[in-house]
Amino acid sequence: MYISKSFIPILKNNPSEAKIKSHQLMLRVGMIKQSSAGIYSWLPLGFKVMKKIENIVREEQNKIGAQEILMPTIQSSEIWKESGRYEDYGEEMLRIKDRQNREMLYGPTNEELVTDIFRSSIKSYKSLPQLLYHIQWKFRDEIRPRFGIMRCREFYMKDAYSFDISDDEALFSYNKFFLSYLKTFKRLDLTAIPMAADTGPIGGNLSHEFIILAETGESKIFTDKRIFDVDNEDTKLEKKSLENLRKKYEQFYSVTDEKFNQEEFEKKVSEKNRLKTKGIEVGHIFYFGDKYSKPMGGSVDLPGGKKDFVKMGSYGIGVSRLVGAIIEAKYDEKNEVMKWPISVAPYDLAVIPMINKNDTSALEKANKINIELKKNNIESIIDDTDENFSSKIKKMNLIGAPFQIIIGKQSDGELLEFKEIGKETKKINLTQIIKIIKEQKVKN
Amino acid sequence: MYISKSFIPILKNNPSEAKIKSHQLMLRVGMIKQSSAGIYSWLPLGFKVMKKIENIVREEQNKIGAQEILMPTIQSSEIWKESGRYEDYGEEMLRIKDRQNREMLYGPTNEELVTDIFRSSIKSYKSLPQLLYHIQWKFRDEIRPRFGIMRCREFYMKDAYSFDISDDEALFSYNKFFLSYLKTFKRLDLTAIPMAADTGPIGGNLSHEFIILAETGESKIFTDKRIFDVDNEDTKLEKKSLENLRKKYEQFYSVTDEKFNQEEFEKKVSEKNRLKTKGIEVGHIFYFGDKYSKPMGGSVDLPGGKKDFVKMGSYGIGVSRLVGAIIEAKYDEKNEVMKWPISVAPYDLAVIPMINKNDTSALEKANKINIELKKNNIESIIDDTDENFSSKIKKMNLIGAPFQIIIGKQSDGELLEFKEIGKETKKINLTQIIKIIKEQKVKN
Repeated sequence: MYISKSFIPILKNNPSEAKIKSHQLMLRVGMIKQSSAGIYSWLPLGFKVMKKIENIVREEQNKIGAQEILMPTIQSSEIWKESGRYEDYGEEMLRIKDRQNREMLYGPTNEELVTDIFRSSIKSYKSLPQLLYHIQWKFRDEIRPRFGIMRCREFYMKDAYSFDISDDEALFSYNKFFLSYLKTFKRLDLTAIPMAADTGPIGGNLSHEFIILAETGESKIFTDKRIFDVDNEDTKLEKKSLENLRKKYEQFYSVTDEKFNQEEFEKKVSEKNRLKTKGIEVGHIFYFGDKYSKPMGGSVDLPGGKKDFVKMGSYGIGVSRLVGAIIEAKYDEKNEVMKWPISVAPYDLAVIPMINKNDTSALEKANKINIELKKNNIESIIDDTDENFSSKIKKMNLIGAPFQIIIGKQSDGELLEFKEIGKETKKINLTQIIKIIKEQKVKN
Repeated sequence: MYISKSFIPILKNNPSEAKIKSHQLMLRVGMIKQSSAGIYSWLPLGFKVMKKIENIVREEQNKIGAQEILMPTIQSSEIWKESGRYEDYGEEMLRIKDRQNREMLYGPTNEELVTDIFRSSIKSYKSLPQLLYHIQWKFRDEIRPRFGIMRCREFYMKDAYSFDISDDEALFSYNKFFLSYLKTFKRLDLTAIPMAADTGPIGGNLSHEFIILAETGESKIFTDKRIFDVDNEDTKLEKKSLENLRKKYEQFYSVTDEKFNQEEFEKKVSEKNRLKTKGIEVGHIFYFGDKYSKPMGGSVDLPGGKKDFVKMGSYGIGVSRLVGAIIEAKYDEKNEVMKWPISVAPYDLAVIPMINKNDTSALEKANKINIELKKNNIESIIDDTDENFSSKIKKMNLIGAPFQIIIGKQSDGELLEFKEIGKETKKINLTQIIKIIKEQKVKN
């Protein structure tokens, strides 16, 4: 893609209204545009990143056997009256009257709607467990939306729901999601720490938040980075394996700044393995038994002829918020350099030819390179403008494709100036460049 | 996927409330579930089909150089007041007051919002043309929602917008979309007829509807099926080629029952090439110049230093409606047999082993077959229940995977009973079956 044809409206300076890194960068490189308070449009650069995150989330849900559905954004108030949450939910729920004067609402979460789907579809224990998820827009009418898409009103979220016959089976489902969350965040190149959490308005008695390590988070976390390597764990989808996995990861989960015992922690963890930082919540999982199935009549036939209410859990990931969370974790604000993890990068590679009116040979070379890149499924953005060199580099450092090829006047024959953002420039040929990028892509 | 583990709630009989084929089938096999009047949840079977349609629409938009963005569902009333449509739009617009008492609305279409994005981002003719699209939920508060997802309130739509410097360039953009629509519908195995249309509330002076041939449509269409073969056309993305293409396809576009001259038509078209049927609108494209850019101040700098308002068009495809349209075109209601085009089929293949309590050898064989299918990226649904043979076939005929393997007691060695729905059963080996299915998939 030529940058001159792309819809990437870049600002010269940081927008003054943005107080945190992710908000600054997203406005600066035109990833988003605010359309009204707490409501944003996603422009091509932001959209590409969010879509890649969405697909990783989807793949990891599918791997644990969850089935994708899609519930509507607008819900009837009736089911919320059945569960008893319609009055409780407060002003964050966007309440709507349709032309027939029926009370509707824009769904802030979907426990009621999915319970309604379940109760009309599944009648027997033989069809359990069921794990259903959807990825859909939600609305929470925040009184003071701020920090761009980190605390906005309309946001994109994956929410999953599990239905089981007993507490024991339900815990197995819960642990499957626990595993899939560790794997999801790992693929996004994030360290996500599971912490015991309050269940809040969702209710229930078991809950974990997944917190991303980033400087601008809301609370301090101390942890041992050695334990956060899910690739080296026993991750079979079996009860015992998953229970052990969760227990292991829970060792450190409650070390918030209030409860944290520094002395105890020092004993356990050596300096070089210690992470200390402020966290951002990107996922939240809940087990709440029959809190919704009971008032709404979601029961199944048991083996002996009796009936029982199904045991449910719910499992959220903030898909749009993750775009911001990755920026908070990866953006070097001081040097104005962003490096996207290759798994979600809007482009794999930036090609930066030096162009002036009398000499377009570098652009021609860039075009030839791009033909080879395309054959290898490497997506590049080419700066085809005649701006000066430093302005081009600055722009590409903000856009954040993790690799760059620079084609200058001295560019000689087969060898190209190639760099991974944040590392030294090397002179290597295109075949080697393609190999390096492909290896990174496979790994992620 | 085992049918016993899937979330496919099949009804024994046709639901009495459904009056048209698509509504009947979608409720019958649990593709959708109504949650309130004109608002539906998409269950796994329906979701898979819709997602495949969405991806085909996306690929064809990308091929003509359109860039994907994502605008929010909730819009501010202010931009609609700027364009002058806020009062005009009537009660189909779902109007909302947020907690701060601001006037908001659930977007029924996005001309205003995309013009707002454009005017704040693009300043020079050098950045034109721009083709932007998004695929997003829309809401139209129909007074009498009916026919399932064919005339509902919350629906999924692709809408694109073009921005050009002159009428001539804008027509080129219009023709690019015209081409991409012919290609999109062809890949869905639909015959879509472009017809000159009223511009309605969108406005403007050039417009085409794309009408699907199906028995239960709203108007009669006569046409010559020979001309609807975009694969054999000159489809270069060049002004002249595309203008010729549109002109050619327009030859028959206005032959509705009112204006149609039967005698003229008989002369031109031989009996075997003639199609006569009743159509469903699945796409609508508009050219409206500066209708929105002028009142909203969407202008760019021209070469000589002057400014001018950009010329815009908009281009819609009803993504969720297409699921219904395909059923209307393909479902044999009398024999209760659906055959999905392989490009959007929820499963490529149904595997139907005969199972009873004492003999599960057929199921074991099905599992072995499925391993080979997976290796070849062929997605199957296996009926692992011990229901009787005719009930299994009936179910799979409704689900509509285009191919079936039947593993009966007489199933001998290498040869398998294989059929494409609607054709004769053959006895061939698995290698041949895989070859047939893969060839079909590539073609589509």
